[in-house]
Amino acid sequence: MNTARPLPSYLVQRYHGWSATTFSENKSWYRRLADEGQRPRSMIISCCDSRVHVTQMFGADQGEIFLHRNIANLVPPFAPDGDYHGTSAAVEYAVTALKVSHLIVLGHSKCGGVKGFHEKCLGNAPELAENTSFVGRWIDILQPGYDRLGGNDADIDDATLEKEGVLVSLENLMTFPFVRDAVESEKLSLHGLWTDIGEGGLEFFNAETGAFEAL
Amino acid sequence: MNTARPLPSYLVQRYHGWSATTFSENKSWYRRLADEGQRPRSMIISCCDSRVHVTQMFGADQGEIFLHRNIANLVPPFAPDGDYHGTSAAVEYAVTALKVSHLIVLGHSKCGGVKGFHEKCLGNAPELAENTSFVGRWIDILQPGYDRLGGNDADIDDATLEKEGVLVSLENLMTFPFVRDAVESEKLSLHGLWTDIGEGGLEFFNAETGAFEAL
Amino acid sequence: MNTARPLPSYLVQRYHGWSATTFSENKSWYRRLADEGQRPRSMIISCCDSRVHVTQMFGADQGEIFLHRNIANLVPPFAPDGDYHGTSAAVEYAVTALKVSHLIVLGHSKCGGVKGFHEKCLGNAPELAENTSFVGRWIDILQPGYDRLGGNDADIDDATLEKEGVLVSLENLMTFPFVRDAVESEKLSLHGLWTDIGEGGLEFFNAETGAFEAL
Amino acid sequence: MNTARPLPSYLVQRYHGWSATTFSENKSWYRRLADEGQRPRSMIISCCDSRVHVTQMFGADQGEIFLHRNIANLVPPFAPDGDYHGTSAAVEYAVTALKVSHLIVLGHSKCGGVKGFHEKCLGNAPELAENTSFVGRWIDILQPGYDRLGGNDADIDDATLEKEGVLVSLENLMTFPFVRDAVESEKLSLHGLWTDIGEGGLEFFNAETGAFEAL
Repeated sequence: MNTARPLPSYLVQRYHGWSATTFSENKSWYRRLADEGQRPRSMIISCCDSRVHVTQMFGADQGEIFLHRNIANLVPPFAPDGDYHGTSAAVEYAVTALKVSHLIVLGHSKCGGVKGFHEKCLGNAPELAENTSFVGRWIDILQPGYDRLGGNDADIDDATLEKEGVLVSLENLMTFPFVRDAVESEKLSLHGLWTDIGEGGLEFFNAETGAFEAL
Repeated sequence: MNTARPLPSYLVQRYHGWSATTFSENKSWYRRLADEGQRPRSMIISCCDSRVHVTQMFGADQGEIFLHRNIANLVPPFAPDGDYHGTSAAVEYAVTALKVSHLIVLGHSKCGGVKGFHEKCLGNAPELAENTSFVGRWIDILQPGYDRLGGNDADIDDATLEKEGVLVSLENLMTFPFVRDAVESEKLSLHGLWTDIGEGGLEFFNAETGAFEAL
Repeated sequence: MNTARPLPSYLVQRYHGWSATTFSENKSWYRRLADEGQRPRSMIISCCDSRVHVTQMFGADQGEIFLHRNIANLVPPFAPDGDYHGTSAAVEYAVTALKVSHLIVLGHSKCGGVKGFHEKCLGNAPELAENTSFVGRWIDILQPGYDRLGGNDADIDDATLEKEGVLVSLENLMTFPFVRDAVESEKLSLHGLWTDIGEGGLEFFNAETGAFEAL
Repeated sequence: MNTARPLPSYLVQRYHGWSATTFSENKSWYRRLADEGQRPRSMIISCCDSRVHVTQMFGADQGEIFLHRNIANLVPPFAPDGDYHGTSAAVEYAVTALKVSHLIVLGHSKCGGVKGFHEKCLGNAPELAENTSFVGRWIDILQPGYDRLGGNDADIDDATLEKEGVLVSLENLMTFPFVRDAVESEKLSLHGLWTDIGEGGLEFFNAETGAFEAL
């Protein structure tokens, strides 16, 4: 890998700051976590978006949250075909090996992935319609949610589609036998969230009302 | 989704704490990030492991790091076949849409995914050898690195394999045309890191010496 | 005390969260409690075990419960010998100075202290038999209850011994003259509880049936 | 125990509220904690005072804090004499069995135990001077701190004595060989805190300046 470069200095400096403060204060605990293994209580699936700061929002320190982040916080349907499925692998590891108690899908406002999907459907993003577009194909996971909202015939705002995407991911999670089993035996609970990144709001999906509601 | 449950109270409390402090102090900046869009300087690909606290280690605030996390911080080879490729989609979005300047692969010690791969190769984890194992198939991305180290004939320690996995991911990144183009035109630099989660150490891959070295 | 260190940051962050939310909402009441003094209705004696969350279980806010927590929620017999007796001091303060109305001993399942006592009796924990073992000597308070259940000749399960320990503590409480006086003049009532920390169950000692019964 | 009474209904109702909400939401995690054992990161030694709400202040859920509470948050000196030493047993269990990473002594304003000690020293509380007073003898642990501040010759305010008491407890902790060993091998760190219960403030002892400072 002769193309690799040293870490840029702005990150080197921050790392040394962390090492001298937070790490130093907590090293005995971090060593135990390394020696004894992680036991995270929750898994969160969130977007890669740099404005969604999952660990800060939930005051999470090392060892607390098993965190998978992908474009638009999507979970594809169960498809045990032997191909590479990074999200499915993360869910499988969290549920079957780590036995997390909570599995949370966290959507957010101003999601570029969701917006891109919508633009593609409306014919405004032909590059995302290409079969070779990784982003374009990945966000197709949203299709059932879009259709349910009325598709191109409906006037759908971004937040509505972002929240519907959270529900699609939760539904897809239930297509994994090990998720369904854990939920049905009450070892695991699923949770759907959506955060407004500009206003700092957080809504949860209330299964009783069928709507997202402010916390 | 009648199986979804409200957010557990311990996370509700923490969210309210964040909202009243960190968010409140920074709301004007966070609103601008929401209105004007993210402009992250770096993308980091790290493991989902709860003990790898990427944002804490790099003192990252909202908007700074486009963060993809999957099992064992792996990047599969370029394969534009129209299937769901979550990691490839994240890389594509970061490089072509966000135009990040740095793309960092961050490996770590005590990685359950890397260890699982090793055990599978040695015949100690038959469940991971099943074609239906999502974790098993995902970590097969490590195979070229394992072979290069000598495979089952060699006595390979976990840290060595974890670091080799970082190199495999960096090599796979260069199989993506848009990554290669950005690197060659000096718009993007790649970086390989490995952190010892118990000791808080951080090593980077030095292309000149061909080895990982402490920062 | 040059060995003291600053508070670890994960607790600093949580404190700031509490300060900005719960404290802020209740500050006028908390100020009155500070100015006018506490007037708790109940004292609870529970175990130090991190899994026994007394205030959460009883929805207790500031000012409600005078809370003593020690290993295995034990009360030693009355022994006014001038030595340090932390538990006896706590009981004395609650009953004679604060004049609480209820004094509750709360036992729990999976109690490490009770289990350690049992193992020691069976010869499986020689370190706890040492005269210099603080834990070993402290849990000897359980001895009369163990003997009553049949001692080493009987097949005693942990929950039975945990509950018997609650009764021993209640009996020891009655050896304190100020407790006995308060109980006999109906200013104070004693209560024995046992909680199953895994199932969330709560049982109380029914003096009429002589058994612990589910609430 | 024919003097024991059923749990008062106000606590029964609250328990049922907790059982139907917080417990229900978290039962899978609480079951795991019960089955796999506690792994608390910190031990806190605080006062029994009902106005010091340790778990609320630190947003602690089940399993997080091993909590010992006694009058005036005192730790007596190391005295392995075979007598009952509840506080020493709690410290021994936390450090040697649970191997906590942080041991925190939390003092507070308006502490009745500290005030009682002061009044006794000034001759205003003869009942606390009696050899048979459990509270009186227990708070004598404060004596070295009081002497250091100048004793009866000095004009000492309550907060100063409360903070000095935290230092006495930290010093006494270092007389326990297993505490000293864990501190010296950097497996354990000690922390001194003092909270103003009326204003919600929190100060930590800064060993570099030798003073308590606001967080």
